[in-house]
Amino acid sequence: MTMRAGAHGGERLVVIGGDAAGMSAASQARRLRTPAELEIVAFERGHFTSYSACGIPYWVGGDVPDRDRLIARTPEEHRARDIGLRMRTEVTEIDVAGHRVRACDLGSGAESWTSYDKLVIATGARPIRPEMPGADAPGVHGVQTLDDGQALLDTLARARGRRAVVVGAGYIGVEMAEALIKRGYEVTVVNRGGAPMATLDPDMGRLVRTAMTGLGITMVDDAEVTGILTGDDGRACGVATEDAEYPADVVVLGIGVRPETALARAAGLPLGGHGGLLTDRGMRVRGHEDIWAGGDCVEVLDLVSGQERHIALGTHANKHGQVIGTNVGGGYATFPGVVGTAVSKVCDLEIARTGLREKDAHRVGLRFVTATIESTGRAGYYPGASPMTVKMLAEHRTGRLLGVQIVGREGAAKRVDIAAVALTAGMTVDGMTSLDLGYAPPFSPVWDPVLVAARKAAAEVRTSAS
Amino acid sequence: MTMRAGAHGGERLVVIGGDAAGMSAASQARRLRTPAELEIVAFERGHFTSYSACGIPYWVGGDVPDRDRLIARTPEEHRARDIGLRMRTEVTEIDVAGHRVRACDLGSGAESWTSYDKLVIATGARPIRPEMPGADAPGVHGVQTLDDGQALLDTLARARGRRAVVVGAGYIGVEMAEALIKRGYEVTVVNRGGAPMATLDPDMGRLVRTAMTGLGITMVDDAEVTGILTGDDGRACGVATEDAEYPADVVVLGIGVRPETALARAAGLPLGGHGGLLTDRGMRVRGHEDIWAGGDCVEVLDLVSGQERHIALGTHANKHGQVIGTNVGGGYATFPGVVGTAVSKVCDLEIARTGLREKDAHRVGLRFVTATIESTGRAGYYPGASPMTVKMLAEHRTGRLLGVQIVGREGAAKRVDIAAVALTAGMTVDGMTSLDLGYAPPFSPVWDPVLVAARKAAAEVRTSAS
Repeated sequence: MTMRAGAHGGERLVVIGGDAAGMSAASQARRLRTPAELEIVAFERGHFTSYSACGIPYWVGGDVPDRDRLIARTPEEHRARDIGLRMRTEVTEIDVAGHRVRACDLGSGAESWTSYDKLVIATGARPIRPEMPGADAPGVHGVQTLDDGQALLDTLARARGRRAVVVGAGYIGVEMAEALIKRGYEVTVVNRGGAPMATLDPDMGRLVRTAMTGLGITMVDDAEVTGILTGDDGRACGVATEDAEYPADVVVLGIGVRPETALARAAGLPLGGHGGLLTDRGMRVRGHEDIWAGGDCVEVLDLVSGQERHIALGTHANKHGQVIGTNVGGGYATFPGVVGTAVSKVCDLEIARTGLREKDAHRVGLRFVTATIESTGRAGYYPGASPMTVKMLAEHRTGRLLGVQIVGREGAAKRVDIAAVALTAGMTVDGMTSLDLGYAPPFSPVWDPVLVAARKAAAEVRTSAS
Repeated sequence: MTMRAGAHGGERLVVIGGDAAGMSAASQARRLRTPAELEIVAFERGHFTSYSACGIPYWVGGDVPDRDRLIARTPEEHRARDIGLRMRTEVTEIDVAGHRVRACDLGSGAESWTSYDKLVIATGARPIRPEMPGADAPGVHGVQTLDDGQALLDTLARARGRRAVVVGAGYIGVEMAEALIKRGYEVTVVNRGGAPMATLDPDMGRLVRTAMTGLGITMVDDAEVTGILTGDDGRACGVATEDAEYPADVVVLGIGVRPETALARAAGLPLGGHGGLLTDRGMRVRGHEDIWAGGDCVEVLDLVSGQERHIALGTHANKHGQVIGTNVGGGYATFPGVVGTAVSKVCDLEIARTGLREKDAHRVGLRFVTATIESTGRAGYYPGASPMTVKMLAEHRTGRLLGVQIVGREGAAKRVDIAAVALTAGMTVDGMTSLDLGYAPPFSPVWDPVLVAARKAAAEVRTSAS
């Protein structure tokens, strides 16, 4: 059976994927076009729509009391806005030439084709699952979807012991370490790299390690996991590395994600070096007038390096959806690119980065200077003033800001936004030294830490250029 | 007696004023030039150097336990760095043609002339003292200097009652209201304007009033103070307006400040419409090769309006001092101007503004649209998420950002830095909608409140332009 487009005399938009990018696109298109003008059909293979995957660690940790708080809009709410949503229905093929998709109802197994005039691909990302013994054993959990989160909570509820091992020390790894600490677990984080938070330079990552160790978390660096140990009941009971074994009542995998683009690849759509779909500024798939893509399944232009990257973040997915929906609905919007901003925390330690790390700058042929300073988030004499380390990279000679990393307590994370805007504007670190940033003793020293870093970086630029 | 410059074969720098701008200039010049190359003489009429006047409300309120915490560098520390500091010595005349200043030792009354090769004027600002009965009575306090703060604390220590009236509802007024609340006082704030915080638009100021009322502070708007009431002992016992009388055991004046430029005016140096010294980009007094000025006694270029303003803020004073010291020392630095960023708080209410208010934009001939949105500082589901109102002004047609005001709880104040950088860079609100700001549930909703405001403002620009 094929459901043909244009049945109502209007066009049909098909959306693959019911989370941030897909449903933002559908919702924005619906704001601009009536159901008579544009029929919208959206396929979601899971049980939920429009939820905050970024919130899962806080649900698991108990900060968020129940799952439904993480759902921004339910299937019923979408349907009430005239979006034809098919839950538990997986698109298994895109027929680009035929302008149609094949979908499988996961309940009944029934397959059908649906024609489209316009197509939005928002298939998201899939967690990296290491190929090793025991990786699929009960008690081993990813935290990508709400179903994953529920499964992990179920395991925690019945775990006999209180030992947790987190594999991976990126954002998900450190956030899950916090969640498990809050649940009363003894937490070990096993990390392949030399320091946690590989999205930071190692010197800044080591600050994170020190703080996490101070929180009672056992940090194991330079450790390649070789397998998950299982007990007589088949459940995970530990994590093995080349050198050691770490007993565990629960294992959480936070190794990262890859774009979910098997469908797109099979359909011959253009993929980049990171496996993500390639789009133009309007989020249209390159070379395809009627197909858009956004969210975790695409690559985005890094405005600092000039190269494509893959960044799975809800904030980008929402922006993509907004841009796609506007364009699909006949408006005009673009997504110019990213500067690579990310913030996170482990208990009261805040971690932020934007722009290029040292190795990123090397890789794209940029010569640079670095400056690292220590300051405080409030005036030194104001109660609660606590240390903050800011590292800044600036291009040799031109002094153009290339990146900023911040590790500290209160006020560290969102301070990186100053640098994110400066990167977008192409500012030099010398130009940044006179930025008129908010100052009052409860919020900043009289020289904001970012200004102090900019002054030092500007001095480094002058020294290195002379 | 005249102390002649060049006694050591080098030059002599004379600095008038020993606080932020003056001593930053002196310190920076000293880093660049040895005592043999540049003798530095600094005159300070008060008892303290290099202190944080911005911290006085927090000292009075008890957050900062003692006065000395507010002093960044003592006279002894400056002298140890070969800065010839003359405390309690007031410069009473600048002889520009003669390249010399006359100073009076306030202890002995002795006067003397000191020659200079280079002069830095950093005479600061003086608080506005209304001309009305009782304004100088005991129990009436400004909070401009450390001596003022100590006098206020002395009054609080012996006050019989617990009623405080604050005159003025700008930054100093609201910060002092918080300080007095913390000291256990019943606080009344009497304000000439229609809402507190005249540095905000009235609609945003009303949010501040509501919050302050909620804190138990009595807010009296549209009230012109006609006199300070005094008791039989001559001490202040109340504040009279045209309509009412407010009993008080202590009265705090927070009406604002004016540039302290009587010396400069008498010397024929160029002053602007706000009474502040006019300088060039290098902080050199216009038309005077050997005289620099910075801090609260100068006017600064507002980069958004293109006109001069007077803004008394420690963060600018420190930047001016740094620039002056660099230039005096033979280096190169500029202060391009400000965008008018200011942040403050009353208990847990944070208040921020940057750029132009509606009336500022009108006054300089800019037509604009406004957008006001409500959001939260964290993801809505994350504990502690609290409301935040963001108002944005953008230029008609071009969509250039003109100003942002934010009132809210945690995370409201420093979010204004995003707009401060965007203003400096001349961004449009449409361009701001794709800014790559830090997102994680503890720090921001998936759409940062500033992005939400930018989206709405961009839509307003499109609508108004069509």
